[in-house]
Amino acid sequence: MNEKIAIIDLGSNTARLVALSYQPETCFKLEDELREPVRLSENMGESKIIRAEAAKRGIDALKAFKTYCDAVGISKIHATATSAVREAVNGASFLAAVEKSVGLKPEILAGEKEAYYGTLAVANSLNYQDALVLDLGGGSLQLSYMKNRKFKSGQSWPLGAVRSTELFFADEIVKKKEAKELIKKTRESIAEYLEDVPKGLPIVGMGGTVRNLANIAKKANGDRLELIHNYHFSLNDLDKITEGLITKTVAERKKITGLNSDRADIITAGAIVIREVLDYYQAKEIIISGQGIREGLFYSYLFPKNDHLVKDLRSFSINNLAKRYYDFPKHNKHVRKLSLLLFEQLAPLHGYGDWERDLLAQAAIVHDIGMAINYYDHHKQGQMLVIGSALAGFSHREQAIISLLVRFHRKGKPSALGLDSVLEKGDLERLSKLAALLRLAEYLERSKAQRVQDLRCHIAEQYLQIEVLAEDDVSVEIKEAILHSDLLANAYGVEVEIVLGH
Amino acid sequence: MNEKIAIIDLGSNTARLVALSYQPETCFKLEDELREPVRLSENMGESKIIRAEAAKRGIDALKAFKTYCDAVGISKIHATATSAVREAVNGASFLAAVEKSVGLKPEILAGEKEAYYGTLAVANSLNYQDALVLDLGGGSLQLSYMKNRKFKSGQSWPLGAVRSTELFFADEIVKKKEAKELIKKTRESIAEYLEDVPKGLPIVGMGGTVRNLANIAKKANGDRLELIHNYHFSLNDLDKITEGLITKTVAERKKITGLNSDRADIITAGAIVIREVLDYYQAKEIIISGQGIREGLFYSYLFPKNDHLVKDLRSFSINNLAKRYYDFPKHNKHVRKLSLLLFEQLAPLHGYGDWERDLLAQAAIVHDIGMAINYYDHHKQGQMLVIGSALAGFSHREQAIISLLVRFHRKGKPSALGLDSVLEKGDLERLSKLAALLRLAEYLERSKAQRVQDLRCHIAEQYLQIEVLAEDDVSVEIKEAILHSDLLANAYGVEVEIVLGH
Repeated sequence: MNEKIAIIDLGSNTARLVALSYQPETCFKLEDELREPVRLSENMGESKIIRAEAAKRGIDALKAFKTYCDAVGISKIHATATSAVREAVNGASFLAAVEKSVGLKPEILAGEKEAYYGTLAVANSLNYQDALVLDLGGGSLQLSYMKNRKFKSGQSWPLGAVRSTELFFADEIVKKKEAKELIKKTRESIAEYLEDVPKGLPIVGMGGTVRNLANIAKKANGDRLELIHNYHFSLNDLDKITEGLITKTVAERKKITGLNSDRADIITAGAIVIREVLDYYQAKEIIISGQGIREGLFYSYLFPKNDHLVKDLRSFSINNLAKRYYDFPKHNKHVRKLSLLLFEQLAPLHGYGDWERDLLAQAAIVHDIGMAINYYDHHKQGQMLVIGSALAGFSHREQAIISLLVRFHRKGKPSALGLDSVLEKGDLERLSKLAALLRLAEYLERSKAQRVQDLRCHIAEQYLQIEVLAEDDVSVEIKEAILHSDLLANAYGVEVEIVLGH
Repeated sequence: MNEKIAIIDLGSNTARLVALSYQPETCFKLEDELREPVRLSENMGESKIIRAEAAKRGIDALKAFKTYCDAVGISKIHATATSAVREAVNGASFLAAVEKSVGLKPEILAGEKEAYYGTLAVANSLNYQDALVLDLGGGSLQLSYMKNRKFKSGQSWPLGAVRSTELFFADEIVKKKEAKELIKKTRESIAEYLEDVPKGLPIVGMGGTVRNLANIAKKANGDRLELIHNYHFSLNDLDKITEGLITKTVAERKKITGLNSDRADIITAGAIVIREVLDYYQAKEIIISGQGIREGLFYSYLFPKNDHLVKDLRSFSINNLAKRYYDFPKHNKHVRKLSLLLFEQLAPLHGYGDWERDLLAQAAIVHDIGMAINYYDHHKQGQMLVIGSALAGFSHREQAIISLLVRFHRKGKPSALGLDSVLEKGDLERLSKLAALLRLAEYLERSKAQRVQDLRCHIAEQYLQIEVLAEDDVSVEIKEAILHSDLLANAYGVEVEIVLGH
């Protein structure tokens, strides 16, 4: 990854920098993140003037960011400023001061541009062609219509979690009447815009409030995964959480498992607004996006062509994981080839289809990534890396299965290892049957030299013969495959014979 | 790491290859390991002839290893053969066949050479100048005297775990008389050699048997660390384990927690022999070496100068860890500098000495290695990497403290996190006080540009002022340091003020 970029985002409360390394169209990695609480909008008031103290904090933070970029050798910096600067009457002169003393020229992101980048983040990290994208910040609620993975239209309203709390709620415990007012206001606001958006699209949600609400639901449901991106957050769960929030004081809310206590004072209003959007649009769930405007902005660099859209999201994600940790393409692709040969020829025994075939193929590409940590136990480390990464384009269930295929690619008896909550009926059998193929392919590629060229499987009553075809000597590959064929025999209930083919 | 090497070791039972990448005098990493069960000595019998079937298995394995090396681009291969080939009457013609059909020329390691490499492994992975090195294999017991980190003398006897079992024990349950015979034989064998070795040296043990016995003791003592290298295995524990083994059948032994069931049939004899060496030499413990002959051999490449000895083992280990995962020397060294400035100036408050100073300095070098896995939670990942690596030259207690310093270098309230079993009284306070310094240094180096040049601490009654000296603007560094100074205030019981110095 030879390119480096810093994306800077000067918000009302916080200045943030993310440093990424990347190779266009190929891979990327988050290298670092800096956050400075700048409270740029402090005492801005109705007059909308960035105050001197606040301006100094903003400039100091940007100076530190610039110094950081110089120190680590990042010359490409994309700095943006959002609502506080956009709305301030002295925004332009503040930016002039920034340019003079820091040497950075933050771009003011217009509302439409924000919505565009938010949509781009969704298009490149979730598997939807069309969606309604909800972005709830502190100040505003933004809805955007994504059609064919592109931003089509959008609108925003001053219904953010902070602003709604200030405008609608008098005390910590929300009165029924206040909640009703906020619901009514939300409904009235969004109604007209939603008339022009097709019904029945999936709703994707971004922003800290919806993520935090989803996290509360995840914990309550016993989901132990650390993943939040692509979590399907049901209206039922949101209903229950909202009911609970309304009747609680801030101190009581802070005791809710999964609730980020910094948000305890504003989360109720956010929950009510989001709930009402779902209700009005007749959606049963909202899918969480862990990515937002900054990621969208970065995608415009990562994917310079094709309208900044990734072509094959799942392949990109898997290859990115491999390139980031440990990539040995010749070996990985050959393990994939052999796995798929086995998968196809054993179809009469397993009866699986394209979905399982794809999971097996993806797992083959990342089966060795644990090597990045250490050789011994690299199957365990690899599992941890797969399940600990935001693997865009895969459901949590798929991610769990791929991680377990990695875990059991060389040894061990397949089991759920605590991932039961995201697995479904039949997945353990699926895991065993697919892991058996991956394991055999791995040992048939033991010398990592692609010596096994083809396989021929002969299936009989409780018996399976695998002929191994090769021009070079593959006696060690065959011996290792035989030594590790127990799982295959057990998973498929057959006696296994592996022989050199002719 | 631009050099690559494969060390191949053709043993009586197993052919093994380890692939390493390295940079001489600087760092190394285990890349891969291949093992093939070749049973070269099968049916060798008294006539000492390598049989045709066995020879074919050996050659097939070496062919696969060579193919592997070609496939992954390793051209430097050091192949060795030990006892089976050395003792076989047709060893030379077997090696000629290997050379002809594989293109490798395994070097036959004489007993003295084995002892030399074993000692070299100890000299470069444990902090002893002098030691008695015990290497118990399947066939023989080897004792070597290491003086000034060099092999001085050695001798071996046919008292290996396999051979002793065959020669001394009739049944699975060992009779008292049989055990006594083995003890007597051991004592008679080693007595003369040990006359010429100084008394009171630490005994270092290598080989699978002693490692496995130590692992049983570790589990019984509730030590949850995965570390075995540098474990101090007491004679008391060995006594208890040996007593237990003698009266058990193989099946019963297999139920012992930590016992490797492949060794269940031979471990009793090994335990008796090792126990007797300790008893006779009047040692109270044996220190486990996780490294052996192969590692020693590798060190002759890693450290081509200075008799193959690493100069500063602890620094080498720490730097190796950093280089292997994530190294940013300018930043790490500056964090170390600032940490040590604080450590020295706050000496009146903590009263710590050179030992703590060194732990803090070492932790500073590796504080960011978790970045190799991902940015978020890199403090947690870093802790896991430090505690999961064999950090040569450090005790387990030191390794635990360094790992926890990494864990708490940027956030969190210091705690033992399950490492209690290796920590001692006062270590949690030590951890808090040192982590507070590391954390302050980290935030004073927030922009990673070495802008803070010096620090001046002023100590008063329950009050500490830290003056920050710099030529460039360090307002963000000071702000971040203040934001993260709670731990310092709590650990030292002082009010903390951080100001720009003049």
